[in-house]
Amino acid sequence: MRLTPKNELEYRYRRLQLEMTKAGLDAVIILQNADLFYFTGTTQTGNLYVPASGVPLYLVKRSFLRARMESALAELIPFTSPNELPGIVAGYGHQAPSRIGLELDVLPVNLYEKYRSLYPNARFVDASPLIRRVRAVKSHYEIHILQDAALQADKVYRRSTEVIREGVSEVELAAELERVARLEGHQGYLRMRAFNGEVAWNHVLAGPDAAAPAFSNTPLGGMGLTPAFGQGAGFNRVGRGEPVIVDFASYLDGYLVDQARVFAVGELSDRMRQGYDDMLRLQELMIARAGEGATWSEIYEAGCLEACRLGYAENFMGMAECQVPFIGHGVGIEIDEYPFIARGFAQERLEVGMVFALEPKLVFPGEGAVGIEDTFYLSEQGIKRLTFSSQDLVIL
Amino acid sequence: MRLTPKNELEYRYRRLQLEMTKAGLDAVIILQNADLFYFTGTTQTGNLYVPASGVPLYLVKRSFLRARMESALAELIPFTSPNELPGIVAGYGHQAPSRIGLELDVLPVNLYEKYRSLYPNARFVDASPLIRRVRAVKSHYEIHILQDAALQADKVYRRSTEVIREGVSEVELAAELERVARLEGHQGYLRMRAFNGEVAWNHVLAGPDAAAPAFSNTPLGGMGLTPAFGQGAGFNRVGRGEPVIVDFASYLDGYLVDQARVFAVGELSDRMRQGYDDMLRLQELMIARAGEGATWSEIYEAGCLEACRLGYAENFMGMAECQVPFIGHGVGIEIDEYPFIARGFAQERLEVGMVFALEPKLVFPGEGAVGIEDTFYLSEQGIKRLTFSSQDLVIL
Repeated sequence: MRLTPKNELEYRYRRLQLEMTKAGLDAVIILQNADLFYFTGTTQTGNLYVPASGVPLYLVKRSFLRARMESALAELIPFTSPNELPGIVAGYGHQAPSRIGLELDVLPVNLYEKYRSLYPNARFVDASPLIRRVRAVKSHYEIHILQDAALQADKVYRRSTEVIREGVSEVELAAELERVARLEGHQGYLRMRAFNGEVAWNHVLAGPDAAAPAFSNTPLGGMGLTPAFGQGAGFNRVGRGEPVIVDFASYLDGYLVDQARVFAVGELSDRMRQGYDDMLRLQELMIARAGEGATWSEIYEAGCLEACRLGYAENFMGMAECQVPFIGHGVGIEIDEYPFIARGFAQERLEVGMVFALEPKLVFPGEGAVGIEDTFYLSEQGIKRLTFSSQDLVIL
Repeated sequence: MRLTPKNELEYRYRRLQLEMTKAGLDAVIILQNADLFYFTGTTQTGNLYVPASGVPLYLVKRSFLRARMESALAELIPFTSPNELPGIVAGYGHQAPSRIGLELDVLPVNLYEKYRSLYPNARFVDASPLIRRVRAVKSHYEIHILQDAALQADKVYRRSTEVIREGVSEVELAAELERVARLEGHQGYLRMRAFNGEVAWNHVLAGPDAAAPAFSNTPLGGMGLTPAFGQGAGFNRVGRGEPVIVDFASYLDGYLVDQARVFAVGELSDRMRQGYDDMLRLQELMIARAGEGATWSEIYEAGCLEACRLGYAENFMGMAECQVPFIGHGVGIEIDEYPFIARGFAQERLEVGMVFALEPKLVFPGEGAVGIEDTFYLSEQGIKRLTFSSQDLVIL
């Protein structure tokens, strides 16, 4: 079991403290699981109180025993209720904070009111943009985990070549690939930060159903098994000569890489084959633009422009009227991390250490979807690919 | 694909409107997926505006096409932003609401501020208790789905008897049982309403690791595969003579039933066997108390008292200092619905139509966990069992 090292945790909270100083925050109180895991090494229920300087205090409700096993932070303190927080913080010599950061993008209103009542004179601000900026720049430790997750992604890819055949249903494929991933350490749960961010951890979609739009903020949707969760693999069966897309978030030790590949039983139409080749080249074109200092939108716009030039204005990143305004997204602990390779981020720049998926995809209503997805990071030596499965179209 | 019928949706929103009238609310705006599914039959991204009287308006951002396919509501309206909401509502002849209910237990602060800005003169209150009361009382339509979900639970149970053997790891078992459930229609995602309610949809735990506490609000935790998600099945292998507990949430058409059974390779110790038998009897004793009008706490207290009388004060519902203050919980679309068979609900009463799991369990640190879980509902003829797999201890 991989435990986040002490120096890694220190490196992380010190970077947050730098951001806090710039933003004039006296304290950030971290409550959400993904952020807790990043800053503590575990997700035991509790509050991580990060002062602008000095050592963070991890107040743990459940389970303190597990927190001691799993967190390398210096100050672990058992507690039973947020009511104890101000007293404990004061006991560690901290003045009552007057500007407090909370994760206002994910914190429910009722819980927020509870924390406001603890510090009635403080001003509360959204600390999530700070936290997300810190988390977007991965350490070498994190890159190594992501590299290991890419090995899992390749095993899923290889198994796909063995199990895709005419007549098999999407859910039969998904269930088998999920089994393979779980045996390789997949946690079985995908973390998405956005509200209502319920997302299947794989979209295994065949033929026309891949073109069905869904509530999820993804270029492809799929019918799913029920309108209660209408996305991802459904009961639809693989036919000859139609694309089967296996889009899979592989998770290892808390980190995910995102990879998609296209398979077909029998030959694809020229249009589908051409579309696939075009998306491969489009991904290359975007990679070439993804240097240090490039704005997130500039990489996005380059992809859009090329897709339009190739005549895919109505097919690119979803069916017409359901197109998503992004071609890529940061990954790490959550699937919607910074950077967003999307419209509207002309001021945000790519930095060394950022990890992101690029997923140019085409949807042809009534026929199916083709495209490619890989996960990359910007190293000091330029862009490197994390996912490494063959990009060839797989004809079975 | 099962679609929620129009009369079922009407029955549901009219019951909410009754609650709204009692609470003096002019409107409830529903945003969260589980509630959206209940009141619309789908989870397409949007806002369901429920007036105190009259027909609800489902404003749909994505995908309007899917909403039309999946929702039997009369008024589906495409929209692109919450900014359009007040205009659309006024256009349907509704006065601007002065008391508005929102799901304040799940709604993030940033999103709340957005809705407050739309109606700056309105008062906002938490509509979740109302919504949860309505959802707690299941219709015959819902009971039928839950009965079908229990068939899936039994297939998982039967497969368990075939695959549990000495030396197999928890995650190998979990992965295989997950595959079986997915083929039977499991959506692959468990809905929990509580903040940070990330929960594995099964806890397959063997021997002493079953006694490990976890961050999840569950009597058993398990080590999981990583501290990033430290619950559920781990790499631990099944040994001879130790209990293997398969606790599984089976989902069908959006609804779940919760069932747990105990298996062992070779004989269990007398203490474990006795503990298992005691939990069976304790479940029966609780069922006998679970009549119409019984308070939720009264059923809970009866179980606790009996566990103490049997000498399990330190073992019941978790290891000492990590015991959870409940023995049962409502199920339906989410795993933490009303009623809570728990401490602190002396005013809340069991009603006909309520569906809940009862899960008396014992934890013996260093040895393992035993117990039973079934899902029940209170019918007009008294308590009925939904999950039906054999309750015998399975010695393999």
